[in-house]
Amino acid sequence: VTHVALGSGEEFDFIRGLVARWGERARGIGDDAAILSLGRGDRLLASVDAAVEGTHFRADWMSPREIGYRAVAAALSDLAAMAARPAGVLIALGLPPAWRERMADLADGIADAVTAADTVVRGGNVSAASELSITTTVLGTAFSPLTRDAARAGDCVYVTGVLGAPGAALRRASLGEAMGEYRARFVHPVPRLLESRWLAERGAAAAIDVSDGLAADVGHLAAASGVAVAIERARIRCVPGVLADDALISGEEYELVVAARSPLDTDAFERRFELPLTQIGNVIDGPAGAVLIDGQRVANAGGHDHLSR
Amino acid sequence: VTHVALGSGEEFDFIRGLVARWGERARGIGDDAAILSLGRGDRLLASVDAAVEGTHFRADWMSPREIGYRAVAAALSDLAAMAARPAGVLIALGLPPAWRERMADLADGIADAVTAADTVVRGGNVSAASELSITTTVLGTAFSPLTRDAARAGDCVYVTGVLGAPGAALRRASLGEAMGEYRARFVHPVPRLLESRWLAERGAAAAIDVSDGLAADVGHLAAASGVAVAIERARIRCVPGVLADDALISGEEYELVVAARSPLDTDAFERRFELPLTQIGNVIDGPAGAVLIDGQRVANAGGHDHLSR
Repeated sequence: VTHVALGSGEEFDFIRGLVARWGERARGIGDDAAILSLGRGDRLLASVDAAVEGTHFRADWMSPREIGYRAVAAALSDLAAMAARPAGVLIALGLPPAWRERMADLADGIADAVTAADTVVRGGNVSAASELSITTTVLGTAFSPLTRDAARAGDCVYVTGVLGAPGAALRRASLGEAMGEYRARFVHPVPRLLESRWLAERGAAAAIDVSDGLAADVGHLAAASGVAVAIERARIRCVPGVLADDALISGEEYELVVAARSPLDTDAFERRFELPLTQIGNVIDGPAGAVLIDGQRVANAGGHDHLSR
Repeated sequence: VTHVALGSGEEFDFIRGLVARWGERARGIGDDAAILSLGRGDRLLASVDAAVEGTHFRADWMSPREIGYRAVAAALSDLAAMAARPAGVLIALGLPPAWRERMADLADGIADAVTAADTVVRGGNVSAASELSITTTVLGTAFSPLTRDAARAGDCVYVTGVLGAPGAALRRASLGEAMGEYRARFVHPVPRLLESRWLAERGAAAAIDVSDGLAADVGHLAAASGVAVAIERARIRCVPGVLADDALISGEEYELVVAARSPLDTDAFERRFELPLTQIGNVIDGPAGAVLIDGQRVANAGGHDHLSR
C-alpha cells in the first residue's frame, strides 16, 4: 500500500483523494521530493510537457478521462523518442473550480496512461487556476538514449504507424463536426515506448516523436543533426480518407521517426508490435534542417505552434 | 556554448531566445528530454512546484524578474528540504500574450535563482495560457536524503532564519499597502540548499521547508513521522514588528525545520551561514501530527491552501 502521510487542509485532502484513487500506481507521495534509485550506468532522462485547455484541447472534444490520458501519454512520448524506460511521472494540475468534481475521471485517465507505460506517479502539485492545465514531468532511464542529432547522410529514415488521423480529427472538430472514425487515434495516442527500445537495440541511431507533424519533426531531426532529409510522398502510410499532404502536417501523432545506418527489419517490427514500420526516405547531404518531399524543398514544414492561440 | 539546434516556427524562435538569454545557465536544450548522469550511489530527487498568477502571486506586487526568481527559488527549496544537491530544473511556462514582452526579465529572474543554486536549466515547455504560470521541476541528487518521516520522540527541533516577513508582506499587500521593510524577504526567498546539507551531515534526521507556515509544516513533519511536536512560542525568532502568532502562520518562508537526535551546534551554523539556527522545541510522544504551542494543541495549524482562490 502506498504510504501517504500528509498534513491537514483542503489541498492535502484533495491530494490524498487523488493518491487513494491511484492506489498502487502512486508511489512515495508525501515528501517534498520523490526519491528514485537508478541502475548503475543508467542515465536519467527528464522532460516536461503541458496540456492547457483552450490551447492544446477543448474540453467539449473529450471526456475528462480522455483528457487525463492524452496529456500524460503525450508527455511519455518524449521518453519514447529517446528510447528510455519510464521511471515515473510528476503531475502538476492547474485546476479551475468547475473541474474539481470531474477530478476522479481525470485521475483515472492519468492512471490509464501511467499503467499502459508500466510506470507510476511519483509526485505532483495542485493549484487553483482559471483554466485546466496538466503539466507532466516524465522521468526515465536509458543506457544509450537516442537523440535527434545523430542522423548522418545515407541513413534510412522510418516512421511507425499510419498517419493523418489526429490532423483529420482536429480539422473536423474545428469545423464543429464530429471526429468520427478519426476520433480514437486523436483521444488515445500511444507512446511508442517498447517500439523505440526495440528500434534502438537494432540499429536506430537518431529519433524524434511526431508531435508537430511529420514534415516539421523530420525537419527538427535534420536541423539537430546538421543534415537534410528526402522523403517520398507515396511511401507515407495514411489512414483512409487522408491525403499524404495532410498527413505530413498532422501533429500529435506520437509515432516515431528514426534514422538508421543500415536497413531495419520492418517485417520483424510489424510482427512484434502489429504496427507498420515504413521507410519513407533517406538522410542526404544538404542544408541543415532541409526537408525535401519528392525532391522539392518544403519552405516551412508547418505543424503545430502552441504559442498561437 | 550551449548547443541549440531547434526547428523552425514561432514557438522555437521564442525558446531559442530564452536559451540564448540564459547562455551557460541552460544546458542540453533541444532534445525531447534532458540527459543527466548521476554519481554512483546517488539517488535522484524530483519535485514539481507551480507559481500561478492570481493564486500564488499578483503581477502588481513584484517585477517580472522577481516573479521568475521567486517561482524557481520556491521550487528549489523542496530540494533543500531533503538535503539534495541541485542537478537541474525544467521550466514549463504558461504564457498570456501580454507577458511575451516581459519574457526577458522573467527569464533573467529564473536565471538568478538557477545561478544562486549553482545549477542549470535542462529543459522546458512554453504554452499559450490565459494567466502566467511557472511550473518548475527540480532535479537533485543525494546519497542520504532527509525525509519528513524520520523524526522521533526526544528529537530537538530547529528552524533556520527569522520568520514572519512574508506573511506580514502579504497582509499589507492584500490591504493595498506597500510591503515596506517586509518586501525583500517576500520577493527574494532563499532556498537553504547549503544549509540543509550542512545540517544533514551533522545529525539532522528529518526535515521540511516552511512553505505553508511554521505551525502547518511542523504538523506535516509530525504527521509523516507519526509523532507530536511541542514548540515554545518565545523561542521563535521573528522579524521586528511581527508577533510569534503571526510568524507561526507566515507561509512561503522557505526556511528549514529539522529534527535531530542530539543537539546541533547552532553557533557553528550561525558562523558558517550568517543565519540563525534556533531550537524551538522537541519531538514528543503524542497523536501523530499534533503540534503543541506552549503546551496547547493547535487545532488547525492553518497556513496556505493553494486550492482556495
